[in-house]
Amino acid sequence: MPTYPTFGFLTPQNMGLLTDLYELTMADSYFRQGMNDWATFDVFVRELPADRSFLVSAGLEAVLHYLEHVRFDGEALDYLRSLNRFSEGFLDYLRDFRFSGSVRAIPEGEVFFPQEPLLEVTAPRIETQVIETFLLNTLNFQVTIASKAARVVLAAQGCGVIDFSPRRDHGADAALKVARASYIAGCIGTSCVLAGQLYGIPVFGTMAHSYVMSFPDELSAFRAFAADFPENSVLLIDTYDTIKGAERAIIVAREMAARGHRLRGVRLDSGDLVATSRQVRALLNAAGLRETQIVLSGGLNEFKVADLLQAGAVADAFGVGTELGTSADAPFVEGVYKLVEDAEGYRVKLSTGKATLPGRKQVWRTADTKGIPQHDTIALAEETGPPGAGPLLVEVMRDGRTVRPDDLDEMRARCRDRLALLPSPLPVLRGSGTFPVRLSPALEALRVRMYEEAARENG
Amino acid sequence: MPTYPTFGFLTPQNMGLLTDLYELTMADSYFRQGMNDWATFDVFVRELPADRSFLVSAGLEAVLHYLEHVRFDGEALDYLRSLNRFSEGFLDYLRDFRFSGSVRAIPEGEVFFPQEPLLEVTAPRIETQVIETFLLNTLNFQVTIASKAARVVLAAQGCGVIDFSPRRDHGADAALKVARASYIAGCIGTSCVLAGQLYGIPVFGTMAHSYVMSFPDELSAFRAFAADFPENSVLLIDTYDTIKGAERAIIVAREMAARGHRLRGVRLDSGDLVATSRQVRALLNAAGLRETQIVLSGGLNEFKVADLLQAGAVADAFGVGTELGTSADAPFVEGVYKLVEDAEGYRVKLSTGKATLPGRKQVWRTADTKGIPQHDTIALAEETGPPGAGPLLVEVMRDGRTVRPDDLDEMRARCRDRLALLPSPLPVLRGSGTFPVRLSPALEALRVRMYEEAARENG
Repeated sequence: MPTYPTFGFLTPQNMGLLTDLYELTMADSYFRQGMNDWATFDVFVRELPADRSFLVSAGLEAVLHYLEHVRFDGEALDYLRSLNRFSEGFLDYLRDFRFSGSVRAIPEGEVFFPQEPLLEVTAPRIETQVIETFLLNTLNFQVTIASKAARVVLAAQGCGVIDFSPRRDHGADAALKVARASYIAGCIGTSCVLAGQLYGIPVFGTMAHSYVMSFPDELSAFRAFAADFPENSVLLIDTYDTIKGAERAIIVAREMAARGHRLRGVRLDSGDLVATSRQVRALLNAAGLRETQIVLSGGLNEFKVADLLQAGAVADAFGVGTELGTSADAPFVEGVYKLVEDAEGYRVKLSTGKATLPGRKQVWRTADTKGIPQHDTIALAEETGPPGAGPLLVEVMRDGRTVRPDDLDEMRARCRDRLALLPSPLPVLRGSGTFPVRLSPALEALRVRMYEEAARENG
Repeated sequence: MPTYPTFGFLTPQNMGLLTDLYELTMADSYFRQGMNDWATFDVFVRELPADRSFLVSAGLEAVLHYLEHVRFDGEALDYLRSLNRFSEGFLDYLRDFRFSGSVRAIPEGEVFFPQEPLLEVTAPRIETQVIETFLLNTLNFQVTIASKAARVVLAAQGCGVIDFSPRRDHGADAALKVARASYIAGCIGTSCVLAGQLYGIPVFGTMAHSYVMSFPDELSAFRAFAADFPENSVLLIDTYDTIKGAERAIIVAREMAARGHRLRGVRLDSGDLVATSRQVRALLNAAGLRETQIVLSGGLNEFKVADLLQAGAVADAFGVGTELGTSADAPFVEGVYKLVEDAEGYRVKLSTGKATLPGRKQVWRTADTKGIPQHDTIALAEETGPPGAGPLLVEVMRDGRTVRPDDLDEMRARCRDRLALLPSPLPVLRGSGTFPVRLSPALEALRVRMYEEAARENG
């Protein structure tokens, strides 16, 4: 038995079982049928969620890490054996399982669109099947969050955005991955300490209402905090009355200044943030505290951030929690993993509304002279791209080994550059996107031919 | 450095850092101020999400496990030291950190309502602060999913509901916890193999379209699968044409019968599920395959399941994925953690729209003679409950040790019993709830007095 059954920790030894049962069932059938020639699968998103006009790539690093480290230990195999459906031969195969395939992908931080292959796996068929669920779980989630976070960052118009979401994220792994994906998308940091430790992301934090309530009065609470954290005090001023809170913060800021310290900021978490942030800014400025920052929080999302700034709210940073960490208005993207080619040739799926594009592919992005993207072209991998267009998919794993690892700062810089050059007619906050994604003539001809043939054979 | 920085595994050694920075900052301040008397915090949900009329308790077991095992190892302390804000005294304190407090909670699988304390922690103040984020992360998420799953289970009217969500869940931990919470709420199992291993939940699986596409034709695919899994074959019949797929499944079922086996089922994942499920059922019945089950899947939620059954769809089970695993229409509940009492007395928070109820409390449920709940009463813990009412909160941890552990089957049985006796006017699928939750006269009087006093002192 695992050491912590009641909790459910993921480990390198058990993460192979973080999969849908049918992946292993199909893999066993391929094993028994001797069907282990290579196959190529694409991950792509079918369509944009409501109010989205672009997606941001994220999650690749965790995918590559999984592919390098996934194993099936004795406990995993014992459990699978207990299900009375797997062949001993297949369980032996899993005992020595190593992912040996190759992967091409759109790097993290890149902007991409539906139908475009985000990631392409080529490997022996059994391996492609075993890994499907984990890849989709990882990519779907991190793309969802990075795409949401990019919207909040754009809405904040240069003000900092901090991930305050751990208490509402979907479990422990989500709290880590929200911090990571939203940092790639341009957030300046997170409240999640473990994400700070594991990923090197800057961590931020202020105080809670319960802290203020734990002292006889608000001024005592502010004084204690300022004494304990002379370099890092951001005071929460709305526990009782925000304006009185601001006045007490100013008293403490003056006391700090007399000791050679500086009040870093105040946070407002409730009430009319437009009116109070303006009043608080005026009070701070009048007290000579122009460098004391204002952090706004409390049920924010990209729409509210945009509305606050539009209405004249004054802020240096926004703490955004629940709606960022759950991508509340669109908590998933419909990323799928589809067979597109194998040793027998190109493959397509015909199911109503779920059709696929055959073959190994490349996505070419064509930009104008200012670097603003004009359209993308999905082409077969062996085609030459349109003149002047650049390819999005790069080789990231060869024969089971990661090549070309990015670090988080590169991903973040990539995303910053891309968001600065979003196609200008693309609606950023509301409305669905209209960015043109074309098929190359060769891919379009192949697609039509494949559909006709498949319909004839199986119709 | 941790062994798997790029992935971010949670371990007993690092889970103490799965917290908002401000929890540790406030804890350090309490440490320096010598403020470590006991304090009591409540977890409660502020309000019901749209289209919810009740919530289902879930996540307690993971909370108790965390409280028993949370530690801060050398790497964690080194990281905290590197942030240049914590006192060495506090880091020493964390090195020996053990949760020593007591916890009362509403057991998992119980139905509960907003404002009712779901969980109450009494511990030295520093401990109460350190644990906040993890408790909220765990409870908010599992309550969200259990409450969503209960709706799908109710909509399915006795047909089985299977969690098919891992590919869209918010990361690895979410895939495990969705399986667990939805099993408590009445799902018959999950596709997530690791949840099967860790929690003993039944696992289910069929095949994917890519499996069918990997064979020269559909019939060959069905024959191979039936040969490999004579006891566990559920054939996916909509890759090309659902009715032709059903006819091919019947051919294979007859071949299986000739070998002494039985086709367990077929799955339909696209198209008009009402019409095709009826046609397929008729074809199967006409072929003498009345025991061959029909599983429906493909973008389902509680509304679609209800509509399908209402329109006459025929199903033995529903595979529900994305919308269950992300609780797509309401991906969070606003569970909060609020100071209600400490050694100085009762505590309340006054912030606009975020007020709290003071004191340690009990929730009493009053039912009619048939056992159908009529109203709940939130009272102070020391009060006697209304005549005939039963208490919801039970002691689950004393002095850092778990008491009265439930197992999953008990939680599941509790939820089944409660869902069978939901207050009959409560809207199950659409509309918000109106179940009456009252305050005892003593609590109401205390609340009014506290608000008046606090407004006078801090206003």
